[in-house]
Amino acid sequence: RVAIVYGSPSDTQTMSKAGATLERFGITYEEVSLSAHRAPRTLAEYVGQLRTREISVVIAGAGLAAALPGAVAAMTTLPVIGVPISGGALDGMDSMLAIAQMPPGVPVATVGLNNSTNAAILAIQILALGDPDLGLKLATFKDEFEQAAADSLADIAAARA
Amino acid sequence: RVAIVYGSPSDTQTMSKAGATLERFGITYEEVSLSAHRAPRTLAEYVGQLRTREISVVIAGAGLAAALPGAVAAMTTLPVIGVPISGGALDGMDSMLAIAQMPPGVPVATVGLNNSTNAAILAIQILALGDPDLGLKLATFKDEFEQAAADSLADIAAARA
Amino acid sequence: RVAIVYGSPSDTQTMSKAGATLERFGITYEEVSLSAHRAPRTLAEYVGQLRTREISVVIAGAGLAAALPGAVAAMTTLPVIGVPISGGALDGMDSMLAIAQMPPGVPVATVGLNNSTNAAILAIQILALGDPDLGLKLATFKDEFEQAAADSLADIAAARA
Amino acid sequence: RVAIVYGSPSDTQTMSKAGATLERFGITYEEVSLSAHRAPRTLAEYVGQLRTREISVVIAGAGLAAALPGAVAAMTTLPVIGVPISGGALDGMDSMLAIAQMPPGVPVATVGLNNSTNAAILAIQILALGDPDLGLKLATFKDEFEQAAADSLADIAAARA
Amino acid sequence: RVAIVYGSPSDTQTMSKAGATLERFGITYEEVSLSAHRAPRTLAEYVGQLRTREISVVIAGAGLAAALPGAVAAMTTLPVIGVPISGGALDGMDSMLAIAQMPPGVPVATVGLNNSTNAAILAIQILALGDPDLGLKLATFKDEFEQAAADSLADIAAARA
Amino acid sequence: RVAIVYGSPSDTQTMSKAGATLERFGITYEEVSLSAHRAPRTLAEYVGQLRTREISVVIAGAGLAAALPGAVAAMTTLPVIGVPISGGALDGMDSMLAIAQMPPGVPVATVGLNNSTNAAILAIQILALGDPDLGLKLATFKDEFEQAAADSLADIAAARA
Amino acid sequence: RVAIVYGSPSDTQTMSKAGATLERFGITYEEVSLSAHRAPRTLAEYVGQLRTREISVVIAGAGLAAALPGAVAAMTTLPVIGVPISGGALDGMDSMLAIAQMPPGVPVATVGLNNSTNAAILAIQILALGDPDLGLKLATFKDEFEQAAADSLADIAAARA
Amino acid sequence: RVAIVYGSPSDTQTMSKAGATLERFGITYEEVSLSAHRAPRTLAEYVGQLRTREISVVIAGAGLAAALPGAVAAMTTLPVIGVPISGGALDGMDSMLAIAQMPPGVPVATVGLNNSTNAAILAIQILALGDPDLGLKLATFKDEFEQAAADSLADIAAARA
Repeated sequence: RVAIVYGSPSDTQTMSKAGATLERFGITYEEVSLSAHRAPRTLAEYVGQLRTREISVVIAGAGLAAALPGAVAAMTTLPVIGVPISGGALDGMDSMLAIAQMPPGVPVATVGLNNSTNAAILAIQILALGDPDLGLKLATFKDEFEQAAADSLADIAAARA
Repeated sequence: RVAIVYGSPSDTQTMSKAGATLERFGITYEEVSLSAHRAPRTLAEYVGQLRTREISVVIAGAGLAAALPGAVAAMTTLPVIGVPISGGALDGMDSMLAIAQMPPGVPVATVGLNNSTNAAILAIQILALGDPDLGLKLATFKDEFEQAAADSLADIAAARA
Repeated sequence: RVAIVYGSPSDTQTMSKAGATLERFGITYEEVSLSAHRAPRTLAEYVGQLRTREISVVIAGAGLAAALPGAVAAMTTLPVIGVPISGGALDGMDSMLAIAQMPPGVPVATVGLNNSTNAAILAIQILALGDPDLGLKLATFKDEFEQAAADSLADIAAARA
Repeated sequence: RVAIVYGSPSDTQTMSKAGATLERFGITYEEVSLSAHRAPRTLAEYVGQLRTREISVVIAGAGLAAALPGAVAAMTTLPVIGVPISGGALDGMDSMLAIAQMPPGVPVATVGLNNSTNAAILAIQILALGDPDLGLKLATFKDEFEQAAADSLADIAAARA
Repeated sequence: RVAIVYGSPSDTQTMSKAGATLERFGITYEEVSLSAHRAPRTLAEYVGQLRTREISVVIAGAGLAAALPGAVAAMTTLPVIGVPISGGALDGMDSMLAIAQMPPGVPVATVGLNNSTNAAILAIQILALGDPDLGLKLATFKDEFEQAAADSLADIAAARA
Repeated sequence: RVAIVYGSPSDTQTMSKAGATLERFGITYEEVSLSAHRAPRTLAEYVGQLRTREISVVIAGAGLAAALPGAVAAMTTLPVIGVPISGGALDGMDSMLAIAQMPPGVPVATVGLNNSTNAAILAIQILALGDPDLGLKLATFKDEFEQAAADSLADIAAARA
Repeated sequence: RVAIVYGSPSDTQTMSKAGATLERFGITYEEVSLSAHRAPRTLAEYVGQLRTREISVVIAGAGLAAALPGAVAAMTTLPVIGVPISGGALDGMDSMLAIAQMPPGVPVATVGLNNSTNAAILAIQILALGDPDLGLKLATFKDEFEQAAADSLADIAAARA
Repeated sequence: RVAIVYGSPSDTQTMSKAGATLERFGITYEEVSLSAHRAPRTLAEYVGQLRTREISVVIAGAGLAAALPGAVAAMTTLPVIGVPISGGALDGMDSMLAIAQMPPGVPVATVGLNNSTNAAILAIQILALGDPDLGLKLATFKDEFEQAAADSLADIAAARA
């Protein structure tokens, strides 16, 4: 139900955490490397078929002049989540601004630099609105953080006592 | 179905485009000014009741050390859309980074600086996944941009002929 | 022979210096406002017809996540000159990086912030390679700067004497 | 009398200089890893009990969207010292701004990037206001810097003579 | 008990919020304009007499190459709170870095840009460690924020009902 | 027909992609290391002879206070393409700004950081305006990107079927 | 004995403080507007004649891709003082980096943004090395700062007593 | 005749190029590590004796909140050359701004990041104003750059012929 797209094969490792996270929650996904600047016609064709393949959310990662997330958002009304990738010389500030600063009417949901895990969690939060079971998994995922923190605090308190 | 929260009453005007955009699409929303740093307990209480009031998406705007979007995201599994606001001395770069650079597991869907319109459109794109009528409205909204551009191009061509 | 494109009607004034400069050198041009993010299909159609209308160089101006110059460059082999526009909250650094940091194979010739005059001069320099008369005009244009500077220096020297 | 808190176990090494410095001055401290974004309820509980455990000053380190120091400051009237940590892709500028740019009424005493030593010295300076012996130790600590510099200068002068 | 120092008479207005905040909490203070770069000997003399005048905390504001807070911190073991002031061409980023990035052993407690209110609140939090009445005032100050937020939320809920 | 100039022998490797790309398209070029700041007279002499040697386009790479591209542009009416090089401590932002922010009348066509490949492609796009065979090669070069992307997409679709 | 050069007539006001400061110390100077990028040959001629006109120090101000100070430094062995001017869209950070980041062997003595007063004081400090009377004037100038500060402090102390 | 001062022993290697360059030109120098923030009294004493030891120019290097160059400049009327050192987490931008952005009346002649070679060349240019032999050495030094460039260009031309 999720498409993961990125601008260059060199982004594969950074984006792999998105797929791993979706799998952990049992979400089906497809993964494609497609450049907005090198293959705009193929990208347009691909985006045009997303709905017929029952894709609900797109995760798009890109570095440098990071046009991919915005280009996808321009051609669909599905929610598009952008992952700025810090592969260039400017620490990724170039890609973060290129992804986030979209004109009114065409948003990209930007997450942190290289943080494809958060792109996946955001996709899951969106899908969970229409899938109560997925919502329960998310709640458990979040509770585990709290539980681990509380346990660790209790250990420290015990050690102090 | 949408909650619009912002950290300071001085953010009201910047965030008003979110409400106006939601209204244009017929989406019900509530709007609250609540500071993560000045009123953390009231905020926790408010976020804890979002689901009982059938809120599906939260739009959170904040400036400076912009903690509000992340603080809301920390306390809910609903999708949280963050609007960095450029009210401080650093052009809003401080708020954009404070909102986007979340740790793995707790995403905020960051939009452009002061771009609360895009926060609303993103919320609508998310809601439209479970609401075909809303999806049609979105498609029409997007087509109007294309149609206006095509018309304007045709006018220029006619003027040239 | 030159097309001037910009992403938003609000860029008209900043980009008007490009047209004025081209006129001064007797170069024919057309001017269109077309958003890469709001009207991608109309833009693709427009770019596809540039050669049939005997356009040799494209000047593309955009602000914020400034995708327009790169989107045009992705769809043509004509030289594309990008003008970053500083209309956003980040002083135009966002648009400069979004325009300049293109992937290998798809360059945009980026000029200074808001400097549409230089975009036009660069277009003229390119056209002058195949147009000796235009080359002479350019040489005269440059000599006038030197002459004015030399005259001003001579005036100061005379005043000193 | 001092609590050292940081957002992620990966911050342990950077923050260890704080504990080492406090020990050198004979100050008791506790050290906890607790994320404001992943475990907000556990954090609230922890901060709520600080006074009952006779904590006077909190040192809070965090990277990226560094919310922890501000979140602690929001929930206590104790002085909170923030240590921005440069673990992310943006050289720590993100965490420095997220920690320093707090709204009026809720300060965080921000020290330099990764400089947990200075967080500890600042905590000691605060505690020394009510502890003359500690004040003497601080004065000696500072005099040693001067003495070492003066000695080194004398050595150089002697070598020159 | 608090000294407010700033580098230039032009900082007076920005720093005036510090004095106003201290007054609101009944704290005595003195206020001096003294430049670290223009009058280093007078500054050294002034700092050397702080303890004899029963000053416990110094608030130091400065812009540009903002040396004042660090220069004061170099000459005393009292806690020094630094207020970066954004009067220069670089939005105050120059002063924030010049104040926060101190070497190990000589901390300055940096607050947000121009945020002299927070410098005063931080000074009060420090003084309150040895002054229970002041602590109560601080707790009330913080509770008022929560109460105002809770009231405002209740009003909105009532309006909705 | 193309001259490749760079400010320091240490730029050789970064700039070598320009020559390699020109060779791939069968374009003759010369390559020289010449510093605008260390050898301004030799540079002026060199630039003065470009036309007599039938150079049509200059590619100029430089780092730090990157004056070379602008210095060349100041002395010729040929199109000058600037390659900012990220060899300094500031990630190349210093060289990008020093190259792009030229005064009206003297443009430099700036490409991305270290992206000498794009400088060469831009030079080829310019030369192709007067060389139809070169234009065909460019079109093929661009089509290969699309074809590779389409093939890869087809492979993925086949694997899914 | 000092030459003040700047890249554009629009810099006149910013640079006028240099001349005013030199006059205050009785130093003769000449002032010229000359662009490194628009009139490189006239600039070379001008710089070549500096020594014959008994100029000892050059103050060069420029904005944007601020090449002027470096271009002058490249053509003379006289000390060159650079004044970055913040007239562009990037707050002057572009001009500061373009002036300061010179290659080894060709320094420019960079002062703060728009701070032509300090350029003049630096020129005077340099000239004073060979002119004891000027050195006395400088010492008096500096003492006046201290005296004014000491007086102001005494006034405050008197008011307190 | 030159004093080289730096804030921390860890700056020794970066600053060593200054001494090596001065030696190459036969200039006597002394070298001291002295922190403005850790040993302000020793620094004041040292600066107070510079003239009695016939020092004419001070080169001061520092990183982070780089106060040393400004602190020296505050206490002397000798020309002070500042070398920003990039040892911190922010690429040296913090030290460059802390050194360059001095208040009117107290200049520091800032050179490029880590560029202690240029600090020495600038010192030599200043000393050469009163030392014709040194001036000749400088002129030769500069001519060697030109000659090397001209030779290299001749070699390339010969190879082409």
